[in-house]
Parts: sequence; C-alpha cells; structure tokens
Amino acid sequence: MKIKDLILGKPLKNSDIASEKLSKAWGLPVMASDAVSSVAYAGEEILLVLTPVVGLGAFGVAPLVTLPILLLLVVLIISYSQVIDHYPLGGGAYSVTKENLGKYPSLIVATSLIMDYIMTVAVSVSSATAAITSAFPALIEHRVLIALIFVALITIGNLRGIRESARIFGIPTYIFIFSMGIMIIVGLSRFAMHSISPLTYPAFNPNAVTQDFSASAAGLSLALLLHAFSSGCTALTGVEAVSNAVPSFKSPSQHNAKMVLYMLGGVNIFLFGGSILLESALHVMPLKNVTVISQVASAVFSNTWFSFMYYVIQLFTALILILAANTAYSGLPVLLYILAHDNFVPRQFGHRGTKLSFSNGIMFIFIVASLLIIGFGADTHRMIPLYTIGVFISFTLCQYGMVRFWLRTKEKGWRYKIWINGIGAFMTLVDTGVIIANKFVEGAWMIILAIPILMAFMIYVNRHYSYAGKQLELNDFQNYHSDTAIGDSQCIVLMQSVNKSLLKSLNYAKTISNNTTVLHICRHPEHAAELRKQWDSLQIPVPLEIVLTPYRDIMKPFDDYIWAREAKLKHGEFVSVIIVKFVTDHWYDNMLHSQTTYFFERMLSKHKNVTSTIMPFHYNPTDAKPAPDEALPAKEK
Amino acid sequence: MKIKDLILGKPLKNSDIASEKLSKAWGLPVMASDAVSSVAYAGEEILLVLTPVVGLGAFGVAPLVTLPILLLLVVLIISYSQVIDHYPLGGGAYSVTKENLGKYPSLIVATSLIMDYIMTVAVSVSSATAAITSAFPALIEHRVLIALIFVALITIGNLRGIRESARIFGIPTYIFIFSMGIMIIVGLSRFAMHSISPLTYPAFNPNAVTQDFSASAAGLSLALLLHAFSSGCTALTGVEAVSNAVPSFKSPSQHNAKMVLYMLGGVNIFLFGGSILLESALHVMPLKNVTVISQVASAVFSNTWFSFMYYVIQLFTALILILAANTAYSGLPVLLYILAHDNFVPRQFGHRGTKLSFSNGIMFIFIVASLLIIGFGADTHRMIPLYTIGVFISFTLCQYGMVRFWLRTKEKGWRYKIWINGIGAFMTLVDTGVIIANKFVEGAWMIILAIPILMAFMIYVNRHYSYAGKQLELNDFQNYHSDTAIGDSQCIVLMQSVNKSLLKSLNYAKTISNNTTVLHICRHPEHAAELRKQWDSLQIPVPLEIVLTPYRDIMKPFDDYIWAREAKLKHGEFVSVIIVKFVTDHWYDNMLHSQTTYFFERMLSKHKNVTSTIMPFHYNPTDAKPAPDEALPAKEK
Repeated sequence: MKIKDLILGKPLKNSDIASEKLSKAWGLPVMASDAVSSVAYAGEEILLVLTPVVGLGAFGVAPLVTLPILLLLVVLIISYSQVIDHYPLGGGAYSVTKENLGKYPSLIVATSLIMDYIMTVAVSVSSATAAITSAFPALIEHRVLIALIFVALITIGNLRGIRESARIFGIPTYIFIFSMGIMIIVGLSRFAMHSISPLTYPAFNPNAVTQDFSASAAGLSLALLLHAFSSGCTALTGVEAVSNAVPSFKSPSQHNAKMVLYMLGGVNIFLFGGSILLESALHVMPLKNVTVISQVASAVFSNTWFSFMYYVIQLFTALILILAANTAYSGLPVLLYILAHDNFVPRQFGHRGTKLSFSNGIMFIFIVASLLIIGFGADTHRMIPLYTIGVFISFTLCQYGMVRFWLRTKEKGWRYKIWINGIGAFMTLVDTGVIIANKFVEGAWMIILAIPILMAFMIYVNRHYSYAGKQLELNDFQNYHSDTAIGDSQCIVLMQSVNKSLLKSLNYAKTISNNTTVLHICRHPEHAAELRKQWDSLQIPVPLEIVLTPYRDIMKPFDDYIWAREAKLKHGEFVSVIIVKFVTDHWYDNMLHSQTTYFFERMLSKHKNVTSTIMPFHYNPTDAKPAPDEALPAKEK
Repeated sequence: MKIKDLILGKPLKNSDIASEKLSKAWGLPVMASDAVSSVAYAGEEILLVLTPVVGLGAFGVAPLVTLPILLLLVVLIISYSQVIDHYPLGGGAYSVTKENLGKYPSLIVATSLIMDYIMTVAVSVSSATAAITSAFPALIEHRVLIALIFVALITIGNLRGIRESARIFGIPTYIFIFSMGIMIIVGLSRFAMHSISPLTYPAFNPNAVTQDFSASAAGLSLALLLHAFSSGCTALTGVEAVSNAVPSFKSPSQHNAKMVLYMLGGVNIFLFGGSILLESALHVMPLKNVTVISQVASAVFSNTWFSFMYYVIQLFTALILILAANTAYSGLPVLLYILAHDNFVPRQFGHRGTKLSFSNGIMFIFIVASLLIIGFGADTHRMIPLYTIGVFISFTLCQYGMVRFWLRTKEKGWRYKIWINGIGAFMTLVDTGVIIANKFVEGAWMIILAIPILMAFMIYVNRHYSYAGKQLELNDFQNYHSDTAIGDSQCIVLMQSVNKSLLKSLNYAKTISNNTTVLHICRHPEHAAELRKQWDSLQIPVPLEIVLTPYRDIMKPFDDYIWAREAKLKHGEFVSVIIVKFVTDHWYDNMLHSQTTYFFERMLSKHKNVTSTIMPFHYNPTDAKPAPDEALPAKEK
C-alpha cells in the first residue's frame, strides 16, 4: 500500500473530478501532441516511398503529395467540430455511428479506434526512441528497452490522474511546437539566403535505405503517388482524439474542445507543411539510423551560435512523441468506459481507480503496446502499415453517420452542413481504400483480420451480460421470498483435528443452526479410529462424520459427500460449510500455514445451495482491535 | 486436470505406497548414481588443480592424491552402515545428530545437507550437459537451456512417483557402470600392450585451460596436494544418500540399504580408481570445452571396431549424471518431510502429493537448482567449490554423533565400533577444514554464509509453529463451550443492487439469524436516494443501511463499519457477512465479472468475530446437478 501511494499519489475524492478537467491551455498540448508529433515521421514515410524510385525527383513531388493531405486535414477538422457540437458526451466516432448507423457499424468503429489508439502508443514511443538514438547512436542496440521504459513512465503518469498528466505533458509540447516553428523559419530563411545548401551523401553510405541515388523522375507514376499519399496520411491521426474526449474538458466543454481542435489544425498545417518544404529544399534522404528531422535540424542549426538547438529539437521531438502516446491514454480508457457501459467490453473498464483515472484501461494499453514494441523491435517504419487504417475506417463511418444525422434531423443549416460531412465521408472512404490497397501486404492485413475477431468478442461479451442481467432481474420481491425460518439451514463444520479453532467454529455453528455435523476426511483408518475415541472422550454434543478415502486427494470425496447432502435438502434449505482460516500477524507467517481455505471454497461454490463460511482464527489473541477472545471462557462457571 | 494427469499419470492410493518401495536391484542404481557419477568430473577437478602448476608431473601425482580419497570412502561406508543399523527411519546424519548432539548441531547438518542436495542437482546436470556438448560442440552455446530441460524432465519423472522413477533411471545406470568398466579394462590393457600411447597437444590449443605445458614437478608442494585432494573429495558425495532414504527400501529395509551401500562402495572404488589411473596413463590435459572422460573414451576406443563405444560412454555419462541429480530428488524431499514433522520447515513439505511423491519438496529442488544453473551458466567447475562442503560438515557431525551414541549406549561391540566412527569423524573433520581453507575464496564462503541464515529461518519457523500449536491446544471442551443459542448471531448482507442474488442471500439469512441488515456502500448521494426509494417500494422486511463515502475505495468505509458493529457485539455473538459470488459455467466468463469476493473476505478475516459467508449465485440455473432453483418460487401461494 505504501509503495502504491508513493508511485500513484494520494487517493482522490469523487468530488475532485471537476477540478481534474482540462482547460483550453492545457487541453491543446494533451490533445494536440498526437496529431502534431506525426511531423516527426510522416514526412519521412513519404520520402521512404519516393526516394528509392525517383531519387532526387522525390523532393519536387513530396510537397505536392502533402497538399491533399493538408486539404483532408481541413475537411476533417470542420467535420469533427460538427461532431463535437452534437455529441457532448465524447465517444466521438463511436457515439455518432451507434446513433446513426446502428450496432454493427459502431462496433467496427470501436474496434478500429481501439487498435488505432494502441498503435499510436507503439508508433509514437518507437519514433521517440528513434529521435533519441539519432542524437546518441550508441543507444541504438537498446532501443526496445528504452521504448518500454517510456511506456512504463507514461503509464505511471496516467495512473496518477488526469490533471497531473496535463501538467507533466503540456510544457514540452509547447516547447516542441515553438522550436519546430523556429527550425522551419530559420531553415527556410537560410535556404532562401543561400546560407545553407542541399545535403549531399557519400557514394556509399552504410546507413542509406537505398544505394541507388541516381534513380530518376522517370519512375514516377500515379501508383507511386498514391502510395506516398497513403504513407503520409499518418499525419492525420490524432484529429479524432478531441471529439472522443469532450467530457475531459472544462465547462463549457464543447466550446473548449472545438477551440482546441481549431488550434490543433492550425499548428499541424504549419508544422507538417513547413517541415515537408524544408526537407524537400534540403534534399534529405531517409537513412536507417538517423531520422529525417534529425538531419534537417542538424543542417539548419549548423554553423550558428545556436547550434545547441539541434539537441533541443531532438529532445523535444522525443518528448512530444511520448506525449502523443499519452493521447491514447486520455482517449482509449474513455472509449472503453463507454463500451463497458454499453456492455461490449468487460465491466472492469467501467470503473475509475482511486486516483479517478481509468486504471484498467490504462493497464490494458500498457500491456498491449509493450507487446507490440517487443514484437516489432521498436521499429517505427515496420509498424506504420498497421497504423492509420483504423483511424480512417472510423473517420469514414463517423462522417457517413453525420450525413445520416442531418438527413434525419434536418436541423437548421443542414443543407450546408451535410455537404461538409458528405465531402469528408467521400474523401476518407476513397482514402481508406487507397491505404488498404497500398499497405495490405506490408501488415494492414493484421488489422483487417483483427477487426472481426475483436468484434466477435464484443458481441460475445454483450450477449453474456444480457443473459446474466436477465438472470439477476428482480421486479417483485414478495412472490419470490421463501417461507423458511430460523434454524432451517444445516451446518457442516470441516475439521482437521480437535483444537480451539474447531471450538470456535462449533460455538458459531450453535448460533446459526440446530443441525450441525462435524466432518473429517481421512486417509488412514487407524487415524480415524483414534479421532473417534478422542471425540467420544471429550463429550462434544455434535455428531462426527468421518469420510475415509484411499486417495491423497480429499477434494473429490468431500465434493461427493456434499452432493449427497445437497440432494437430500428440503425446499429452501441451505447447508453452511464452516471452514477455518488461520490468520497470522504477518503475511510471511501466513505462508507457513497451507491455506486450503480457497480450494474448499472454490469447490463448494459449484453447489447452489451450499455457502462457504470462512471463520478466521487468529493466532495472536491480543492483537486484534476490540472484541472478546475466540476461545470463549465460560462466563459464570 | 487433464494435462496434469497426462504428465503425472493417474493418482495412486495410500495403500499403494508399499509397492512403491525399492528392491536391492533397483535401489542400487537410484542410490548409486550420485556417488558413481562423480567419476565424470572428480578426476578432472584433481587434474585442473595439478596440471597448470606441475604440468606432466600431475600424472604421477594424481593417483597418489586419489588413494586417501578412496581410503576415506571405505571408512565412510563402514561408518554409514552402522548408522543404517541404528536409524531405520532414514534422515541419516540429521537423525543421528539430533538424537546424540542436540538441536543446533542437527540444524547445521540439516542446512548443510539441503545445500548439498541442491548442489548435487546443479553440478550433476551441468556436468551431464558438458558430456553432451563434448560430443556435439555445436550445442555449447545452448548449455544453460539444455541443463534446464534436464532438470525439468527429472522433476516430472519424480512427480510421477518413486517406483516409476527407479524403472526409468535404473537401466542407464547399469549400462554406465558396465561401459565405464569396459573402458577402464580395455584402456589399461591397450596401454599395457602399447596399442595406445599418451595424448599429445598442439603447442597452442585454443581450448586449453593453461598454455604452460612445460610446467615442471618443481612446483609440487603440500599445499598443492591438499588443494588437489580437496577438489577430488567431490567423489565422496552421495555416500550419505543411502542412509537418508532407508524407509524407501523394501522390507527388510535396513538390510537392503546396507547391501546397496556396500555395492555402491565397491563400484565406486573400481570406477574412480580405474579412471584416474587411465587418465594419468594417457596424460589427459583438462580442456575448456571437452571433458577429460570424453578425451579418454575417444582415445581408448579409437581405431577399434567398437569405436561407437565413445558415443555410448558420452550418452550414458550424461544419463547417469542426470540420475545423480535424481538422488537428490529421492533424498531431499524425505529430509524435508522429516524436518517438516519436526516443525523446522513449512508444513507443506510434510505432505505427499496425489502420486505419493513429496511434490512440494520436488518443486523446491526444481526451482532452486534451476536458479543456480542459470546463475553459474551451467559451468560445473565454477559450482564445485560450493559443493562438497555441505556433505563433509554432515559427515563429520554424523560420525561424531555416532561416537557419542556408543559412549551413551555401550551396546555390544561398542569398543570396536566407536573406533570406526571415531576415525571417520576425525578424518572428515580434518577434511572439512582442508576443503574450507582451499575453496573459501572460490565460492565456499557462500555456503558458510548461507548455513546460519537457513538455520535462523528454521528456528523462526519452529518458534512460530510452537506458538501456533499452543494457541490451538484444546484439552477440555466443556469449560470453553459457549452458552449461546440459535439466533444469537447477527447477519449483514452486502448489496450491490436489488437483484435475485440479493434475494437468495436474504432467504438464506432468514434461516441463520433474526437480526439481519442489508448494507450498501455508495459513492453518489443521488444514487443512494434512488436505492432507498426502490427499497421502500419493494417492501422488503429487512432494514437497509447505506454508508456514503466520498472516495472511490469502498474497503475502508466497509472496514470502519464492521469495526463499529463488532465493538457492540455481546459476549459470544458473531456477525456473518454474506457476500455473493457470481458463478458462470466457464472460467473465461468468470473473467467478465469483477470478483471482489476475495478482497472482501481478506478484509473481513481481520475481524475475529466476523465470518465471511460466500453465497454462490449461478447464472445458469439449469446446469448445476440436483437441488432447487436459487430464486425460490413460493411453494403454495
């Protein structure tokens, strides 16, 4: 308990939840980091497609590929601000689809989003590790370990509660945005003034992704452009985070969420557009162990009095990517909370922890993301094909859901608004197709396969809860209340040997039943005879039953005995089985006593009309707080 | 359960235990493998001390160093046969020391033996792995994994039961003894007939332990001889195994055990003496990755039509070493069983499993030996310094204990017998000193440090059990029997919401108490008000108490409430807290229901006068075997 408090801080009261909400100023960094941080790898992904085929020609084409991506970003931001307007409880695409398209489309969205959030964590943290290892190449061989440490730190931060997370994560995001802005402005200015020139690479570069630097623009094709476009679309992930987390904002939460969404859009267009321009101007070739941004920063700040800025960029690139992972920690637990309340995921996701964070959802991300990082060796480029698809499926269904919403409600201005969502739906649908076609073989198939599996799981969970709920339903008390009375239950006291714990159990049994049996299960006939003799001599006024078994295992004969007893029960009658649990002062002393209590209890819970009554016997009679001794001395003898 | 049966076989009856005992023919391989198998490394350990200092001179000295070791073996065998005569219940050195020297010396013996047994497993399995990797050098890098697989296989074999172990393990031991005998006879014959000549090594051998092959006999000193002697003493371990396991033999168990002990001695003198002679004759230098025995076998059977014997020797060397590890699996669980009955180790070691083997003791060996193998990288030579000390401490104390035994009993022939044990005690005492002095820095210090720690643990365990036993003692029933009557216990039904599981609990509570309260712990005042309204409308004839808490955690307010209730209890009164446990048909469905039952139970067991009554609620009312439905329909309405 002490260690837990140290890591997680003091528990919070329920009423503290209001003060845990996000203002605009803190909401921007928490929500923006995902979208903004993609600058760190989205440009590189475009160049990784183009440069091996068209060589230097890539740098003329890359900005053109970026334009439709930025256009799509604008459409999405306007579309999603309409979602926020009408879905104040968060859940974003899921809520929209559920209401407007029904159960199955909403489950497709839910599963897509879950996978997208998890991939956000895995990709961002891996990319953060790449930023660090670009600056300190000696660390490359430890990248999986570094990535896992990052995930663990984010997890702990989030378990501590929402507001503290915002405080930890807000300032670095601002510094990143600011320093990237400086890099773009300084870089483009120096380039314009011919103070820096395009990078050149040695003829043989061991770090190069391709050695064929002489490839020409002849290889340019529509297929290649679409492939580059689909790779660059990772820059759009994260836009939906705001709409999913509306209730996390301070009141008026819808207004604040929308403002944050617009700011996010502005920042992203500037940083992504600017950095692609700069990368193209400087002819940056993607390399294996040094990121593109690292090469740009190194070039832009070379030979200036502020060359330390290179390390600032690397450090805060890593930080903002870690915070991007944090977006998933804000968004996914809320989504799981909503799904839990709709009975589609285990109910454990529907509770807040002592720190008012959704602890189970947070631990879920931690485990799955860690496994992905280990599985893919913390290699961003290998994970990218699994990313993006999820979010584009949810974009498409969400926009289509909004189209249906306008058609249904015909609210004021619907003719204008339906166009926005309609264009959004169409563009994202086409885009989803392009991404699946281009990335399927590279890994997208895993997501396409996982979606129906996860959906089947959700449907299973939902059916189970419906069934269980129906079994529990109670509308009429009087009709079902039994007409039994006190003393109508039987009692079995499980005995190991004649000792004070047995006495305590017998004294208790006397208060709850008139029909008590002491039961002993025995492996040795001689021992049984001895016990019988001792029993008779002590004149204990309760019958002793001994079950003899030739086997070591006593569970089976015990179970058989209970079935036989249960079969003879009258209507409404129960059997209480009293099992002693030995309690010591210290947990390590408990290990010296074989705690078979729970084995018995688990076996007994198969029996509907049998309860397991666990009777604590404390070895230290003076330690427990108030209350009389368990070995009751006769009062007046 | 099915997988367990497949691995471990069907459970055995208690009465099967007699037929599980060892005959002479099966007892020899089971008990001898430890002592005999040391041939595989004891000679090598002597040469590893001598050759780096005196070079080829080592081969003149090694047989001389071996002589006192064989003499000691004879003394020990005679001494231990006297132990078997007088201690038919096994436990060997431990029983002797306990009876004749008292508690603390016997604990020194117990801890020493425990460590020696475990080291036997670690050393033997590592040496077995070396035999395999000598023949197949490609496997060297996987030696830790191979060693761990061996330990796992031995563990499974032993969990299956004693007799089956003997059957699995007996034949290979005989083949080993037989083929080693052939090797010695063929080798010495060929050497005598000049059909083979001493081995020569290239000037630079990457496998050599030392490159200084030119070292001369000038380096010879008494210290070196003592060092070599102490290294060779590993050959003596395993002699005590027979005396520890007397009850495992068929009746007459003492006679059979002694016969096995004598046979063991004869075999060991022949194999150990013979192989040292052969190694010296062939001038075998110890190498890093090829064992000495492997070099000998390769030389002896070279250029013959039975050169396949090399592989036979390697295979059965590995097998007998694995079986040597098995000796510890026969001996240590019996020792732990005796210690458990003396209350010096946790009682869990005092029970046999369903297969009549001491499962807990076996698992204990498995875990500790595996950790040692991982820690020492399965390197026999690095573990040897930790080995041998334990067994020599127990030899010394056991022999001294027998001296005291003769002095006390003055049995027929004591004047003669006391000399045997006296000489044994003196020789092993001196030897223990030599071993500690020579091996302390190399690793023996770990054992010297571990002995008092383990002893302190045993004393702690003993005190705890004495204390607990005293708390439980019950000699007089009437004086302590309480004068309470039925209905004198109160009942609290823990409620989450109004549903059929609550109804079932209430129906049960009616049969055990006249004073029932329904308790609900709530975080939201609005929810509390709603619940109260629902309660009143249903007209349930039991008072509802609602505890409101501002925190997420409901354990603390629940605990406080129970303390308050407990403080008001009358003398002899109990509170039964009824907690519903939801039971589904499948374990995976159980995961969908947060099982807080055990958290509640653990908290409640702090309260001496409070019992936790776990009421199973089955979601599937048609599945359970007989018995009426839990939602009791009124019988006649």
